[in-house]
Amino acid sequence: MIRAGVLGGTGYAGIEVVRLLIQHPETELCRIVSQSYAGKKISEVYPSLMGICDLECSALDADDIAASCDVVFTALPHGASKEVIPLLYEKGLRVIDLSGDFRYNDPAVYELWYEQPHSHPELLKEAVYGLCELHREEIKKARLIGNPGCYTTCSITALAPLVDAGIVDNKSLIIDAKSGVTGAGRGLNLPNLFCECTETMKAYKIATHRHTSEIEQELSLLAGEDIILSFTPHLAPMKRGILATCYANLKVYHSPEELVALYRKFYEGDPFIRIYDAGSLPEIKHIAGSNYIGIGLEVDKRLNRVVVVSCIDNLIKGAAGQAVQNMNLLFGLDEGTGLMSAGMYL
Amino acid sequence: MIRAGVLGGTGYAGIEVVRLLIQHPETELCRIVSQSYAGKKISEVYPSLMGICDLECSALDADDIAASCDVVFTALPHGASKEVIPLLYEKGLRVIDLSGDFRYNDPAVYELWYEQPHSHPELLKEAVYGLCELHREEIKKARLIGNPGCYTTCSITALAPLVDAGIVDNKSLIIDAKSGVTGAGRGLNLPNLFCECTETMKAYKIATHRHTSEIEQELSLLAGEDIILSFTPHLAPMKRGILATCYANLKVYHSPEELVALYRKFYEGDPFIRIYDAGSLPEIKHIAGSNYIGIGLEVDKRLNRVVVVSCIDNLIKGAAGQAVQNMNLLFGLDEGTGLMSAGMYL
Amino acid sequence: MIRAGVLGGTGYAGIEVVRLLIQHPETELCRIVSQSYAGKKISEVYPSLMGICDLECSALDADDIAASCDVVFTALPHGASKEVIPLLYEKGLRVIDLSGDFRYNDPAVYELWYEQPHSHPELLKEAVYGLCELHREEIKKARLIGNPGCYTTCSITALAPLVDAGIVDNKSLIIDAKSGVTGAGRGLNLPNLFCECTETMKAYKIATHRHTSEIEQELSLLAGEDIILSFTPHLAPMKRGILATCYANLKVYHSPEELVALYRKFYEGDPFIRIYDAGSLPEIKHIAGSNYIGIGLEVDKRLNRVVVVSCIDNLIKGAAGQAVQNMNLLFGLDEGTGLMSAGMYL
Amino acid sequence: MIRAGVLGGTGYAGIEVVRLLIQHPETELCRIVSQSYAGKKISEVYPSLMGICDLECSALDADDIAASCDVVFTALPHGASKEVIPLLYEKGLRVIDLSGDFRYNDPAVYELWYEQPHSHPELLKEAVYGLCELHREEIKKARLIGNPGCYTTCSITALAPLVDAGIVDNKSLIIDAKSGVTGAGRGLNLPNLFCECTETMKAYKIATHRHTSEIEQELSLLAGEDIILSFTPHLAPMKRGILATCYANLKVYHSPEELVALYRKFYEGDPFIRIYDAGSLPEIKHIAGSNYIGIGLEVDKRLNRVVVVSCIDNLIKGAAGQAVQNMNLLFGLDEGTGLMSAGMYL
Repeated sequence: MIRAGVLGGTGYAGIEVVRLLIQHPETELCRIVSQSYAGKKISEVYPSLMGICDLECSALDADDIAASCDVVFTALPHGASKEVIPLLYEKGLRVIDLSGDFRYNDPAVYELWYEQPHSHPELLKEAVYGLCELHREEIKKARLIGNPGCYTTCSITALAPLVDAGIVDNKSLIIDAKSGVTGAGRGLNLPNLFCECTETMKAYKIATHRHTSEIEQELSLLAGEDIILSFTPHLAPMKRGILATCYANLKVYHSPEELVALYRKFYEGDPFIRIYDAGSLPEIKHIAGSNYIGIGLEVDKRLNRVVVVSCIDNLIKGAAGQAVQNMNLLFGLDEGTGLMSAGMYL
Repeated sequence: MIRAGVLGGTGYAGIEVVRLLIQHPETELCRIVSQSYAGKKISEVYPSLMGICDLECSALDADDIAASCDVVFTALPHGASKEVIPLLYEKGLRVIDLSGDFRYNDPAVYELWYEQPHSHPELLKEAVYGLCELHREEIKKARLIGNPGCYTTCSITALAPLVDAGIVDNKSLIIDAKSGVTGAGRGLNLPNLFCECTETMKAYKIATHRHTSEIEQELSLLAGEDIILSFTPHLAPMKRGILATCYANLKVYHSPEELVALYRKFYEGDPFIRIYDAGSLPEIKHIAGSNYIGIGLEVDKRLNRVVVVSCIDNLIKGAAGQAVQNMNLLFGLDEGTGLMSAGMYL
Repeated sequence: MIRAGVLGGTGYAGIEVVRLLIQHPETELCRIVSQSYAGKKISEVYPSLMGICDLECSALDADDIAASCDVVFTALPHGASKEVIPLLYEKGLRVIDLSGDFRYNDPAVYELWYEQPHSHPELLKEAVYGLCELHREEIKKARLIGNPGCYTTCSITALAPLVDAGIVDNKSLIIDAKSGVTGAGRGLNLPNLFCECTETMKAYKIATHRHTSEIEQELSLLAGEDIILSFTPHLAPMKRGILATCYANLKVYHSPEELVALYRKFYEGDPFIRIYDAGSLPEIKHIAGSNYIGIGLEVDKRLNRVVVVSCIDNLIKGAAGQAVQNMNLLFGLDEGTGLMSAGMYL
Repeated sequence: MIRAGVLGGTGYAGIEVVRLLIQHPETELCRIVSQSYAGKKISEVYPSLMGICDLECSALDADDIAASCDVVFTALPHGASKEVIPLLYEKGLRVIDLSGDFRYNDPAVYELWYEQPHSHPELLKEAVYGLCELHREEIKKARLIGNPGCYTTCSITALAPLVDAGIVDNKSLIIDAKSGVTGAGRGLNLPNLFCECTETMKAYKIATHRHTSEIEQELSLLAGEDIILSFTPHLAPMKRGILATCYANLKVYHSPEELVALYRKFYEGDPFIRIYDAGSLPEIKHIAGSNYIGIGLEVDKRLNRVVVVSCIDNLIKGAAGQAVQNMNLLFGLDEGTGLMSAGMYL
């Protein structure tokens, strides 16, 4: 059994890691660290766990974590992670970090988008970007994983096959993404109140959202050239899910069927990728509650433009599920262990 | 492996049976019968199952079912079940019926509340009422289960300990229940449209809802006398869940703590019952997505009245989960097999 | 033109007063007082008012209010109102208070339920309880109105005709009420986050909610004897609306038609009361966005129990609309001025 | 008083016309025609109108309409309108048609996108496209108005100033639009059920939605050249509102402030257009329940791309409100009569 700990286990991403670890057949959940709820049972904070997991939340104690865990999931705010992780890492733990702190190849990019110095560039070099579908082999050998952002996972997987094949104009990429409200976390912010969120939608952080830089990093790697693109996040009145609508100009016309074949080839053997037949499209309710990614596409013949729609559950494939998928790879388990169940639909 | 079939597998209760059977470790899902979708893959009807279960829906063929299944779940409309089930039953199948057709001890009660003759009273006599917490031992020996209604499960479990203990005035019982919209099924009815349901609530079928008679049957059994009670169903703008607020006048004062102890004793050993400590109450999100029942209570000292709040997921403990729990009992498995996972909370 | 000011104009009740005053043909909105947003335009806080009302919010200045307003609406937290209102009242302003501070005939009741002394019992004596349908004539002569609570308005109007007629057992009254989330206000509390509220329901403050005491006060007045009753509030995943399901044992049987006639007689001439024909019931979407109250009922013949369902928009008839209705009465306007428009349904 | 009739008055667009006409100070609502509900009071179909409008729905009788109305709003399905309207038009009525049948300058475009011949091209020539902000003067002189589509109104107003100024690459236009579910109408279609719509989002009709052709027609007129663009509609889990996120490549860099100034100039004097300051953006809740359009923008400096966000209430500015605005222009009233009230926000 893999002994696991979760730091920041009472936030929305953290509790989802907890939930997935509880039902994971090869893992024992040993520690839940929470500043705000130290001393309280996790099932008091989230009564959905009553009788299933009544572990008490504890304050951070790196020695204790090191003694009792093999792997740690850090679901802390950006900036906090990079101060805590070195302590854990140097004690030999494997670390899967859900913040933005260890996702970049180049500390300068981090510093530009996060507007703070990266205090541990040496560790950043060790870290592997944990998008399993693109970096599977490196992940298997890593000890520190920068688990990708939610928008990022959805957007990169939508565009990777096109960019990799070199068949689109890389200057034409536009990603218009819609997220559920869990993406905003459990913080007490006015815009997250029910009465401020329900029955409305909004765009935010146009041209400035941090996930833009992650998407550009990974697509640039595939393209072999620097890609700059438009990314527009929106908030929609639902709990879970991201739907990204991605636009790209084709260099020459390709039929939807050809592109679907291209996508299926690119993602061959990936257990969580579902490429839809030409003519049908994914919806959030097709994947909500699961680790799957649904990808469908349409070609606008008049404009020679492809429109790719991709959907993930932001808390699972966009956070906790991907983190567990990374753990599976790190420990030599089958990649899908504990993650293959269907979403709820209803 | 238990070979299972689902009749009416594309309705909301049916697809939930399908989903639970897929993740059940001791079951093989062999047939999904659907009139409307015969010839289509279940994953075309519910794309959340893509790559997980791509079984083709078939038309009803009793011989084929008998040859390929050990147990059948019938999730058909009321009235339709009682015509189909005899065909399956006589071929030796075990049948778990999710309709109202086999829930009654007395065909006259069925005929009064369902306003139609019961064409198979002899089978009704064979059937066991599948509320596992109350009829566990009979269920184990049965071949035909009348799986309880959703409102019913929530209401009976809320009041059973009080009625059984004989400490409340049985003439004072009032159940005010609130349900999510999946309870209304997948039929194309105007009141079920999104724009008719969202941002509103309503009461319906006051004093005439059929589940009243089921609740009365079971509580009367416990009381050893005929109980007549008020039951008011409401529709709330959410997908899943029932919350029942139940009122009963205490014969003499009991503290919340005493009553909590009474409930814990009554439900000792029941894996899905969660009795809340005095001072805290269940919410639908504590159990949504799971087979658990949450029960909490408060005593109004001024009136010597107890108010019990109970919550279930109407599709799981109120339908498909309970049906699988019944299957576990029928086949001698551990009662919780395939059903112990936590709800989603988010 | 009546010159009006709103204190606490940026909370949910306050902004609804603002919205109604803007479209009121006989009122000029002169001051919006807000501690948190002083110096900001109200249309920056609520951009739905851009170009319609760009009044700047100001800090509280009683002299300024007195000089510029004829009437003040105070939408402040309970406890705060009773400290501010005397300053305004003594300067000759008419005051309509939306808090609980001036709703009671007896300061001891206030002190019991609000757990604090009432610092201005002399003003409490001056105050009139602003449930227009019951106290119209006193309101017309008053200078200080204790505007009723939202649950209260819905519950009292549902039960008043029965209690007034003396045809129900006053010990049997139970009110099971469901509210939208605006009822919880705009405060930053974890349970009010979108992801904590949506797709769930809960009961809260069973047997202890303050509105119980208001309901009892008014029904006792009608009954001519002390009434104690059960009141259970619930939170439902919608913005607006309260639906109260009220239970009462009839002394002797009355048909629904007889009771509907009784209700219509009781509320004769009341412009905002809609009594439904026997056989049909109000829903929240029938009145959401309007000042109307919908009341329907059913009689459970087996139990000789009447079930009354009543619906209001908690922000309008349950707060701001009723406050404006009170203003109309105070200033000798037609009671419905500015308030007669239909709700949105959609 | 203008005597008005509504054909198709019980659909979602139709009932919104009814609601707006009831509160319009210069209009008398004389006829509501409904095939499905002929003989029923409109307040039985929409109880939100109880006591406010109890007009009985009638079957279509062109002579009766002509005798009793000055203007008719036709809210019929596409295709049906163009058969009925000639009968009304030839009797001298002014007609405001909410379908797609009279929105095109060129019948060939209609026939291409609606896949049916246009049986009355001669009337199409008479019709004026009723986007008031662009065709005010022609509307004033017209007798037949093709009231614009909901997506159309939102998209055209978002891009018109840029296209008119000639400062964007007309080949680069992409509109990513999100709509509430009222846009799908009141028909009994599986995808419109509450449980199919809530907690999910989807894209649909990519590159083939009919509103694309309307948007292209109007923007081409402004550009003086044929514009072809990408339009992607999405369904979001809310009742009302459209948010369109529009992308265009700038020929040369312009600051957000410059573009805001351009927009304000373009829409000078338009009572329903709200251009947001640079740095802030509209949300659906800013305009829901009102006839206003909110438009904000951001410039992505790295890509020299402008992103315009615009929001309307699809039932009001996107249908019924715009129709009434057209009526005001047709009859020489102030354009905003009966339409200037603020949205609800909550």
